[in-house]
Amino acid sequence: MKFSLILKYFIPKEKKFFSLFNLVADNIVEGSEQLKKLFNAELVEDRKAIGLIIKSIERKGDDYTYEIFDELNRTFITPFDREDIHQLTSAMDDVLDLIYGLSGKIDLYHVTTISTHMKEMVAQTHDGCIQLQMAVKGLENMKNTDKIMKSCKELNKIESRVDGFYHSAISGLFENEKDPIELIKQKEILLNIEKTANKIEDISDIIKTILVKYA
Amino acid sequence: MKFSLILKYFIPKEKKFFSLFNLVADNIVEGSEQLKKLFNAELVEDRKAIGLIIKSIERKGDDYTYEIFDELNRTFITPFDREDIHQLTSAMDDVLDLIYGLSGKIDLYHVTTISTHMKEMVAQTHDGCIQLQMAVKGLENMKNTDKIMKSCKELNKIESRVDGFYHSAISGLFENEKDPIELIKQKEILLNIEKTANKIEDISDIIKTILVKYA
Amino acid sequence: MKFSLILKYFIPKEKKFFSLFNLVADNIVEGSEQLKKLFNAELVEDRKAIGLIIKSIERKGDDYTYEIFDELNRTFITPFDREDIHQLTSAMDDVLDLIYGLSGKIDLYHVTTISTHMKEMVAQTHDGCIQLQMAVKGLENMKNTDKIMKSCKELNKIESRVDGFYHSAISGLFENEKDPIELIKQKEILLNIEKTANKIEDISDIIKTILVKYA
Repeated sequence: MKFSLILKYFIPKEKKFFSLFNLVADNIVEGSEQLKKLFNAELVEDRKAIGLIIKSIERKGDDYTYEIFDELNRTFITPFDREDIHQLTSAMDDVLDLIYGLSGKIDLYHVTTISTHMKEMVAQTHDGCIQLQMAVKGLENMKNTDKIMKSCKELNKIESRVDGFYHSAISGLFENEKDPIELIKQKEILLNIEKTANKIEDISDIIKTILVKYA
Repeated sequence: MKFSLILKYFIPKEKKFFSLFNLVADNIVEGSEQLKKLFNAELVEDRKAIGLIIKSIERKGDDYTYEIFDELNRTFITPFDREDIHQLTSAMDDVLDLIYGLSGKIDLYHVTTISTHMKEMVAQTHDGCIQLQMAVKGLENMKNTDKIMKSCKELNKIESRVDGFYHSAISGLFENEKDPIELIKQKEILLNIEKTANKIEDISDIIKTILVKYA
Repeated sequence: MKFSLILKYFIPKEKKFFSLFNLVADNIVEGSEQLKKLFNAELVEDRKAIGLIIKSIERKGDDYTYEIFDELNRTFITPFDREDIHQLTSAMDDVLDLIYGLSGKIDLYHVTTISTHMKEMVAQTHDGCIQLQMAVKGLENMKNTDKIMKSCKELNKIESRVDGFYHSAISGLFENEKDPIELIKQKEILLNIEKTANKIEDISDIIKTILVKYA
């Protein structure tokens, strides 16, 4: 709330949204970086500690989301369609929810085996979040649409790569894993990483729609 | 349809929506009360009988939803944004669908173990539905926003509590349950109660958005 | 993209949407027909080959969806509400995604047992897609709303039937299947067929909403 107060007095109205979008995107990058750390941590205690950091990042994300919606409700003229702001904000919030959910599931399901496929998928997801951050930053000054489009295309490729890993991991699981409870755990973790990468790609679609309209 | 006919002639246009919202909220409370009964019933026959009651409650809910959307399509001036009416109605319909889905899963999965955690979560969900009912009733006369906000805050707390139960139940399940099929059943029931509580909290967010705009 | 070029010069603006809707609906029917073939194929190689066909159908569907959204962004006057066009298009895209997902899961999960229930559900789903195609075709000339409504009612009945099969299949699974990994596979395939039928019924609701407004 303090942040919103500062914004209110020093930043011109239309810039508020871009400042908030950037804060959300930065926060997502932070979350995905912690997730990468969590998937590479060896000790359960370390994972739990990182899980707490991710929790606080997710809370921060909720606050930003709330501020954007609040701003949307009080602002008459918005930098682009209210509907697009709404969609972009919700989708970015979903990414952080999925990241937080993943860190929670690692703990709750007492997951012990973190496969190379999983690590690779999470690393790709983090790269995707960095591309997302660049695309979002580009929205403020739409003159450089090429750069935004480049990030969007990169996000497409990353999603494809995650999807490839996901498919071979799941196929391997149903071929080799004989312990059904282990299979349930692994399947759900894989599915949720894939969902996260998918959601990030959804955002690139939202951004492309905005570009078509305003650039 | 008879109900809609009565409404058409005796209630002024703008009041129709509030009457319908209240009917939906009352119906949800009835549904969640039956769900609580179902989770506390010992005998399979009793559960089946309650399941049938919940089915008829869900049907009634569908009729109300249909009436609201129909009304929305023929009404030019609505008490608040069409989009908000749409979201509120859909979300309330989702709650009842989830309640009906839960009663169905107990039957379909031949669930026998209903844990204390589950019972507690369902009891909390019912309390949440009562708070929801109060918040919805408050929408008609927005002078008393404090009371609505109090219900919304209560819904937040309830969701937190359900979430807490959910986490310890799932964690316990993956620690102790050795029968994978039993684990699958329990996990899905727990997940669906949690989803229901979450959806109810979503509605409190929708209501808060309406308050910000109109109160 | 070539297709869009042809449309641009030969078809009047308002007809483009209907042409594209029909192409999407035709594509869905093709997809569901291939899915029916896949569920009735005996050999793994045959299934894999059909899976590739479905993949290309899904890609084509994505292109159409992209064209419709693109057209929506450049067209000022649309044959009906932008929101309705958006919903209809997204939901039709979801149907094809679900069909593609199903064909993928059969492969990834190394599913071997394709039950009579599954075959029946997929056959019904294909019938549903044909009804959907008829309803969509009817949208262009809304004079014959009776025919559209008949298809919508048929879609309702089909969904009910699929739901019935789904319930008895799941109930049978939890009663008789002792192999948990087999249960996981079957459950997920059944669930996804049911989801597909549900999504098709959602479209009939969207179409009914359009009828109420414009017919």
